Amino acid sequence: MLSPSPGQGPHAVNGVRDRLREAGIRLPRAAAPNYSYVAVQTWGELAFVSGQIPKDDGRLAYEGRVGEDRTLDEAVAAAELCAANALAQLDSTVGLERIARVLKLNGYVASTDDFVEHPSVIEGASRFLEAALGERGRHARTALGVSRLPANALVEIELVAGLHPA
Amino acid sequence: MLSPSPGQGPHAVNGVRDRLREAGIRLPRAAAPNYSYVAVQTWGELAFVSGQIPKDDGRLAYEGRVGEDRTLDEAVAAAELCAANALAQLDSTVGLERIARVLKLNGYVASTDDFVEHPSVIEGASRFLEAALGERGRHARTALGVSRLPANALVEIELVAGLHPA
Amino acid sequence: MLSPSPGQGPHAVNGVRDRLREAGIRLPRAAAPNYSYVAVQTWGELAFVSGQIPKDDGRLAYEGRVGEDRTLDEAVAAAELCAANALAQLDSTVGLERIARVLKLNGYVASTDDFVEHPSVIEGASRFLEAALGERGRHARTALGVSRLPANALVEIELVAGLHPA
Repeated sequence: MLSPSPGQGPHAVNGVRDRLREAGIRLPRAAAPNYSYVAVQTWGELAFVSGQIPKDDGRLAYEGRVGEDRTLDEAVAAAELCAANALAQLDSTVGLERIARVLKLNGYVASTDDFVEHPSVIEGASRFLEAALGERGRHARTALGVSRLPANALVEIELVAGLHPA
Repeated sequence: MLSPSPGQGPHAVNGVRDRLREAGIRLPRAAAPNYSYVAVQTWGELAFVSGQIPKDDGRLAYEGRVGEDRTLDEAVAAAELCAANALAQLDSTVGLERIARVLKLNGYVASTDDFVEHPSVIEGASRFLEAALGERGRHARTALGVSRLPANALVEIELVAGLHPA
Repeated sequence: MLSPSPGQGPHAVNGVRDRLREAGIRLPRAAAPNYSYVAVQTWGELAFVSGQIPKDDGRLAYEGRVGEDRTLDEAVAAAELCAANALAQLDSTVGLERIARVLKLNGYVASTDDFVEHPSVIEGASRFLEAALGERGRHARTALGVSRLPANALVEIELVAGLHPA
């Protein structure tokens, strides 16, 4: 699924939407935060994306905790949806074309104390970004478990991206 | 409370202390870390601020967990105090004048497993920064719950800020 | 153990390996991630290092939780090993010589709900970095507790470093 030569030229840049279409990826509608913060804050060629929960066009699609009322597969799907929301937030602020590289992704999994497969869950987000962005989607990452997430979300994803100059 | 035109020129920069005074905000004394790290580390026009717990001039003012021995309102006040400490740390290192923008805030709430209103708690920190810095205080954000914080603090806040050139 | 004048010139840069040797520090073998992410992602003069668990040449050396089946001393040793792995990852990607400064370290301690000494644990990582890198190893930091870490690791460390130009 990786482009053999992702590059950073105009041709490759134009390819982001083509790649999404070919991979059958539809981005959810970017939801504005309900609180006093912004979804994306930029600084030069860095973009900080706020924690994204698995909303599908505004509705929280995955609640609960792995190891209790949710399966590993559901959590993987939730992580993928969180990553899609992160991309949607970047699209609606700086635009997908400006994403030069995903730099760092942190993923949090609501889970019981005996669950230890957090990396398998967050893998859903990492694979989504690679499918959507190719080589530019590969990132450093930290996966963690927490005992409960905001709004009872199953997974939460935040990331830092490197941008092409405006 | 927001400036209609925050800008980044000298006039706006001079306004930080005026704004604090007008908003009745007194910053706590910045406490030096008790361990082998620094409160603020800078790199070019980025400043990384260490996790701040709700200390009021050196004394931990809010302990415990929401959902157990602390209320939501107490946690909001604790988040506000954490943000005030973050600003105090920036003031005592790079100086308030150099803060061009708060980029990213991560907030952690010590809470029981059934608590899901972490964003309402961290909102205390976000609103404080906007009151203190105006448009420059608006940031990307992640709010999380943890089952216990260092020193039994009720809330912990860390942030990344963008700086004007020295 | 600190160099009186760490500097950033070629002489000081050459000193990193000497310092490690003098301090009796052997870096573990950098393990490639088992998932779809990279150990280190760079962007200009910034390097983001993925969460590191206490592996000793590929084998997880410290499992469990403080306050339950592990002691504070074991957790401190685990934090030190995590930091050694972070340095090994930087060595095998950008090279130790390019590390200009450790900027931010986040440390997570698997621990029971009544444990509050997370900073004493993460101190193992901070001291290791200062022993290895001198003044350049001093960083901003956040220490947190979580109820369980990936693969049942006792501690996890992630960091951001500033790099000399390539």
